Amino acid sequence: MRELKIETNEEKTVVFERKANYYETDQMGIIHHSNYIRWFEEARLFYLENSGLPYKEMEDAGIFIPVLGVTCEYKVSVKYGQTVLIYVSITEFNGIRMKCSYRVVEKETGTLCSTGTSEHCFLTKSYKPLSLKRSYPHFYEKIMEAVHNGM
Amino acid sequence: MRELKIETNEEKTVVFERKANYYETDQMGIIHHSNYIRWFEEARLFYLENSGLPYKEMEDAGIFIPVLGVTCEYKVSVKYGQTVLIYVSITEFNGIRMKCSYRVVEKETGTLCSTGTSEHCFLTKSYKPLSLKRSYPHFYEKIMEAVHNGM
Amino acid sequence: MRELKIETNEEKTVVFERKANYYETDQMGIIHHSNYIRWFEEARLFYLENSGLPYKEMEDAGIFIPVLGVTCEYKVSVKYGQTVLIYVSITEFNGIRMKCSYRVVEKETGTLCSTGTSEHCFLTKSYKPLSLKRSYPHFYEKIMEAVHNGM
Amino acid sequence: MRELKIETNEEKTVVFERKANYYETDQMGIIHHSNYIRWFEEARLFYLENSGLPYKEMEDAGIFIPVLGVTCEYKVSVKYGQTVLIYVSITEFNGIRMKCSYRVVEKETGTLCSTGTSEHCFLTKSYKPLSLKRSYPHFYEKIMEAVHNGM
Repeated sequence: MRELKIETNEEKTVVFERKANYYETDQMGIIHHSNYIRWFEEARLFYLENSGLPYKEMEDAGIFIPVLGVTCEYKVSVKYGQTVLIYVSITEFNGIRMKCSYRVVEKETGTLCSTGTSEHCFLTKSYKPLSLKRSYPHFYEKIMEAVHNGM
Repeated sequence: MRELKIETNEEKTVVFERKANYYETDQMGIIHHSNYIRWFEEARLFYLENSGLPYKEMEDAGIFIPVLGVTCEYKVSVKYGQTVLIYVSITEFNGIRMKCSYRVVEKETGTLCSTGTSEHCFLTKSYKPLSLKRSYPHFYEKIMEAVHNGM
Repeated sequence: MRELKIETNEEKTVVFERKANYYETDQMGIIHHSNYIRWFEEARLFYLENSGLPYKEMEDAGIFIPVLGVTCEYKVSVKYGQTVLIYVSITEFNGIRMKCSYRVVEKETGTLCSTGTSEHCFLTKSYKPLSLKRSYPHFYEKIMEAVHNGM
Repeated sequence: MRELKIETNEEKTVVFERKANYYETDQMGIIHHSNYIRWFEEARLFYLENSGLPYKEMEDAGIFIPVLGVTCEYKVSVKYGQTVLIYVSITEFNGIRMKCSYRVVEKETGTLCSTGTSEHCFLTKSYKPLSLKRSYPHFYEKIMEAVHNGM
């Protein structure tokens, strides 16, 4: 199966808003870098839900979407008291693999604080690789639709 | 079934050693208070393993030990760079309920930093209450033995 | 200074809404119990902000509100996919000590999932105890007002 | 200043041993992927301490080592009950920037579970960039020594 690369200019981007929590700070006085990976997950699952694909429903149907890899670049630190907007989009998807892209922006100033990516596959409950297209065409179509439905 | 109260002076106490992690600090410059609840879990599972009852084995056998309640008092804050000793003991156990007690001591100075408790029951994988004595006498005996085997 | 006990029937209660996050689950398939302590913090800081007392402003002004103790009782587990309402109120406050109370309710069904408390004092940046009434009467009045302003 | 690339075959590698904690699991039944970023930090700070450079001492001396970027690839999931060995090395260092590399190996089987990297700079307490070589030659020499002192 040929990998389907979605062109950037037609990607749907969803914006997820989020306050930085006090318990996410560290003694450097900033949000600890590990939390961005969790924020990415929040934003990603928000994207899916926003696209009519609540992840809970997917897991209930027997689909796991594990993480194969993450990257995160930290440009400007986020602090407690700030609210961030996380722009999330699916940049690659072919029913077997999915790649997401993230931009964390401080809401008040619009400062770009962080960028990142995550890569995923689809697994059955017994951890077997899965082609969404073949096994869950309904979910496949929904994600495809979401990806192409640029805002 | 009568609740079996173990007398304090015959309780086994296990000591679990633990470094405070950087990512556990907050911007107050101390270990965030929520982490002590996690440290209690580490210490409790160490106690079980130390008593020949690895929790992984118990879960594999179909036993969950959920938490019904926790308390924690914070006396002196723990800081990054410090190592703590967590003294853990089972203070009540009757096969249906279990109560654990914790003391967090800074290793170098012996300062008592925190005390706490946790209460538990035993559940099947389908979240049904369980009497260890009736359903898993082997595990019941092992915990009873651990509890009474004062050090 | 006499401890001021606020009568329950005149307490202001603030409701904080919160989705359970995937990364907060554990392999028991429920939200890990340690996260409730973090949710309590979120709800407490929301209460303060909601009462015109953003904690960031208080820390900037030189006031820390550390946690002296927490308790949490777990009645019904919260699961990923659920949204909770956290009812938070200040049950005791005299400018030197503060006690908060929490109830975690599953939004859709109204099921009471958890209750808890937290106790606090007020410290300077150099960790010295502080009487809000004496040193920061403005903040003292605001909290008093919030506490009494029953809804 | 020319970037100093340390050749791979002379890098010192430090091995950090770590049990997977129950509270680090998620409902997929595996260690949540965000925790590896925290494990990398534990391993990195262990490396520094092991090289005579406790990070607490560095922060006390006024040096922060923030994270500029992280990457992590997940190959085989780690489960509760397993112990991992984290092989950490500094792959680039010139006193202004530092790059670290990580391999997470399941202890019992030797299975490679994850690889990753992190990039860092050095900052003063007021978040100003810092050349360790110029401002803290003692720390600079110690890291250089550590990097070259292959095991």
